[in-house]
Amino acid sequence: MKKVGVSILGLGTVGGGTYRILTEHAEFFRRTQEVDLVIESVLEQDGRKTEALGVPAEKVAQNIAEVVLDPDVNVVVECLGGVNEAREYVLDALNAGKTVVTSNKELFCKFSHELERAAKRHNAGLFFEASCVGGVPIIRTLLDGVQSNEISRIMGVINGTTNFILSEMTEKGSNYADALARAQQLGYAEADPAADVEGFDAAYKLSILSSLAFHTKVPYTKVFREGITNISREDIEDGDSLGYVLKLLAVGKRSSAGVEVRVHPAFVRKDHPLASVGGNYNAVFVTGDSVGDVMLYGQGAGALPTGSAIVSDIIFASTHGEMRYSTFKNGAAPEKDMKFLSDFRSAYYLRLTVDDEPGVLAKLSSILAKYNISIVELIQRTAKGEAGKATLVLVTHETHELAVKNAVAKLNATGLARVESVLRVAL
Amino acid sequence: MKKVGVSILGLGTVGGGTYRILTEHAEFFRRTQEVDLVIESVLEQDGRKTEALGVPAEKVAQNIAEVVLDPDVNVVVECLGGVNEAREYVLDALNAGKTVVTSNKELFCKFSHELERAAKRHNAGLFFEASCVGGVPIIRTLLDGVQSNEISRIMGVINGTTNFILSEMTEKGSNYADALARAQQLGYAEADPAADVEGFDAAYKLSILSSLAFHTKVPYTKVFREGITNISREDIEDGDSLGYVLKLLAVGKRSSAGVEVRVHPAFVRKDHPLASVGGNYNAVFVTGDSVGDVMLYGQGAGALPTGSAIVSDIIFASTHGEMRYSTFKNGAAPEKDMKFLSDFRSAYYLRLTVDDEPGVLAKLSSILAKYNISIVELIQRTAKGEAGKATLVLVTHETHELAVKNAVAKLNATGLARVESVLRVAL
Repeated sequence: MKKVGVSILGLGTVGGGTYRILTEHAEFFRRTQEVDLVIESVLEQDGRKTEALGVPAEKVAQNIAEVVLDPDVNVVVECLGGVNEAREYVLDALNAGKTVVTSNKELFCKFSHELERAAKRHNAGLFFEASCVGGVPIIRTLLDGVQSNEISRIMGVINGTTNFILSEMTEKGSNYADALARAQQLGYAEADPAADVEGFDAAYKLSILSSLAFHTKVPYTKVFREGITNISREDIEDGDSLGYVLKLLAVGKRSSAGVEVRVHPAFVRKDHPLASVGGNYNAVFVTGDSVGDVMLYGQGAGALPTGSAIVSDIIFASTHGEMRYSTFKNGAAPEKDMKFLSDFRSAYYLRLTVDDEPGVLAKLSSILAKYNISIVELIQRTAKGEAGKATLVLVTHETHELAVKNAVAKLNATGLARVESVLRVAL
Repeated sequence: MKKVGVSILGLGTVGGGTYRILTEHAEFFRRTQEVDLVIESVLEQDGRKTEALGVPAEKVAQNIAEVVLDPDVNVVVECLGGVNEAREYVLDALNAGKTVVTSNKELFCKFSHELERAAKRHNAGLFFEASCVGGVPIIRTLLDGVQSNEISRIMGVINGTTNFILSEMTEKGSNYADALARAQQLGYAEADPAADVEGFDAAYKLSILSSLAFHTKVPYTKVFREGITNISREDIEDGDSLGYVLKLLAVGKRSSAGVEVRVHPAFVRKDHPLASVGGNYNAVFVTGDSVGDVMLYGQGAGALPTGSAIVSDIIFASTHGEMRYSTFKNGAAPEKDMKFLSDFRSAYYLRLTVDDEPGVLAKLSSILAKYNISIVELIQRTAKGEAGKATLVLVTHETHELAVKNAVAKLNATGLARVESVLRVAL
C-alpha cells in the first residue's frame, strides 16, 4: 500500500481539525482509499495546542527546514493563516518538491501565480479546496465536475460571519451592532471583524472561484466590494415586507464584454434557494452553458468541515497522477486584454425620506426616469420620528449601477429626497 | 498538446448532446484543458440522427469492431441504453483497453462488478458520472470531494419524471393519470412509464450512489421500492394542509447495524431544502462525519446537462492519471457479511376512513399505542361522498416500518378503520 507522509503547519482550528481527521480515520483511509496517510510532523509552537491534540513530542518540528528536509514528508498542509510566514513556508515546501495543501484564501488569492510557478518548476502539487466555502467541494466541481462548460456566472453566499449577522438581524430584529456582538461572543466573528463584515474574505474567495470558473486570473483588487456595516434594521424590515431577504452576495459574471466581480449586500426573493441559506451555511450557484444551474450547499467554515476539504485534497493528491497534478492551470495567469467591468446591471432597492406633500412622487419618478430607472414596487409610509416627512421604499427594474449612483446624487442635490439606503436586488 | 480520440455509441438524446458539446467546444477545451478532444467515430444506424447532427459519413462506424480496433480511439462513450448490447459493447471496448464513459445507470448498476474487473485487467478507465443525476457532479463529489468522510446518509430527489408528476399534482391539483399524461405529452415520461413511476430508475441510481458512499456494493435488488402510481390528489391536499410536500425520495443509510436503502414517496416539510426542488431538477444530500450535510442541486436529465457530465468524465480521464484511473474502487465488491436492513424507522402519514361516532379516536389511538405508534398531528373531517363516515389524517412520531404495517393490518381487520393511504414522512 502506498504510504504518504503529511506535515501540518499550524494547529489552530483548521489544522487541529485536519490532525483529528487524519489520526481518527487512518484505518478507514487504508481500507477505502488504499493509501496509508501518516502524520510525520506538525509545526506548532503553542504547546497547549499540541498537547490538547495529543501530538507525540517527537512529531513536533522545530522549524520549517526540519519539515521540508524530511524525505518522509510528501504533503505539507498549510494552516497558518496570514500571508508573510505562510507564503515563505509554502514556497520552501514547493521548492523542496513537496505537494502543498492550503486553506489560506488570502495567500492563495494574492500569490497563486507565484505559488503555481514554484509548483510547476518542482513538479509539486498545489491544492486549495479548503480555501473556499469550507467542506463544500466547489473547487473540485469547477475543476473536474463542470469543466466541460463555459461558465457564465458564479453567485453565492460565501461568508458565514456576515450570513450569521444578517440572519440574526432578520430573525430577531437585532440591529447591526448587537448582532455583531453576538457573533463575536459565539466565536463566529473575530475581535476585529473587518475582514468579514467589510467583504474582504468573500472578495478573496470570489477572486479564486472566478479565476477558476472563467479561466483567467481575476485579481481580488478588481472585485467591487461593499460590506454590511451600514445595514439598518429598517432596511431589513422594509425588504421583508416586500418579500425579500438580505444576504451578502458574491457575484461573478463573464460575457463577451468582460468579467464582472462584486461582493455586496443584496436582497433575494424569499423563495430563491439562496434565501434559506442560514447561519454558518454557504451556497454557490454555478451557471454553465451545458449543465445550466448547479448549486452546492454546506457548511462554509469550522474545524471539521474545512478539515474535510483538506483531507480530501490530500487523498486526491495521493491517489491521482502521482502528485504532479497542479490544479490551478490557466486561472493562475491573467488573460491578456481581459476587461474587468466597473459598471454593472442590477435591480435596486432605495429608501428615501421626502416631504410628505402632494406631487413629490411625481417629481421623484420623473428624475429617476431621466436616468432610465423605472419603479417596480413602492411602499410609502410615515417617516419614523420626523414630522412632516414620509419614507418611500422602492424597488427598480434592472438598470445600471452608475445610473443609480448619478440619480441618487441628483436626488440628494436637489433636496427633493434624502436617500437613506441604496441596496442591490438579485433577480 | 495531448490528442484524445473519442467514439460515441448511440446518438439519442444524451449521445447527441455529447456530440454537440464536443464539436462546439473543441477549441475551448484545447485552450482551457490543454487537450485536443477529437470525435473519431460514432456508432449509430439511424441515418436521420447522424444527419441531424451533421456527422461526416466517414465518421459513421459500421459495427463495434470497427470502433474498438481503431487505434486512434482512446475513449468510448456508451449512450445506447438498455443492457444487452450495451454490456457487450462496453466489455469489447474495455477488453481492447479503451477507457469507457457511460450514462447507462441500469447497465452500471447491474454489471459494475464485471465491468470493473475488465477495466482493471486491461488498464482501462471506467467513468459513469452521467449515470446519476444528470449534470450534477455527485459521483465526482463522492469520489474526490468528500471521500475524507465516513458517509452515514445519502438522501435526495433523483428522478425528474416523478418529480414533474408530483409537482403537477401539487401545483395544479391534477390527479395522477392526468399528470402522467401531461408528462408523456411533454416528453418527460416514456410511453411505458414503469421504470420511472415504479421507482426502478431511482433504485438503480441509489444502488450506484450508495455503493460509492458506503464503500460496499449495494445491489439494486436490496432497495425497498415503492412507486407513485397509487398517490391520490387527496393525499397531496391533506399533506399540504399539514405543511408537507410529497416527493419521490431515495434514502440510503449506513450504520453499525448495516445498510438501509429505500425509494418511496415521502412527505417533506415545506421549509426543507428538498421541498423546493421542482420539475426537472434533482437534489442530493450527503451527510459525512466531518463535513456534515452537503447538498448538490441541478438538472437531473436532458441532452446537454447529461452531456456535460459525460464530457467532464472524458476530460477527467484525459487529464489525470493517464486514463488508468478506474473510479469505482471498493464499491464494486460486496463487503463480506454486510447486512441489508429490511425494517427501518420513519415517521408516517396515515389517511383512514372511520365511522363518524364518539369513541372511535380513543379506540384507534389505543391500537396504535400497542404497536408503539404515537400521533403528532391529526386532522378530522367529513369523509367525501360517504355518509356517516369521517376521514382521519394523522402524522406519527418516528416508528418502525414493520410496526406500521402490523398496525394497519390490525386496523383493517378489526373493522375499526379502513386505511386508505400509508406514506412516509421525512423529518
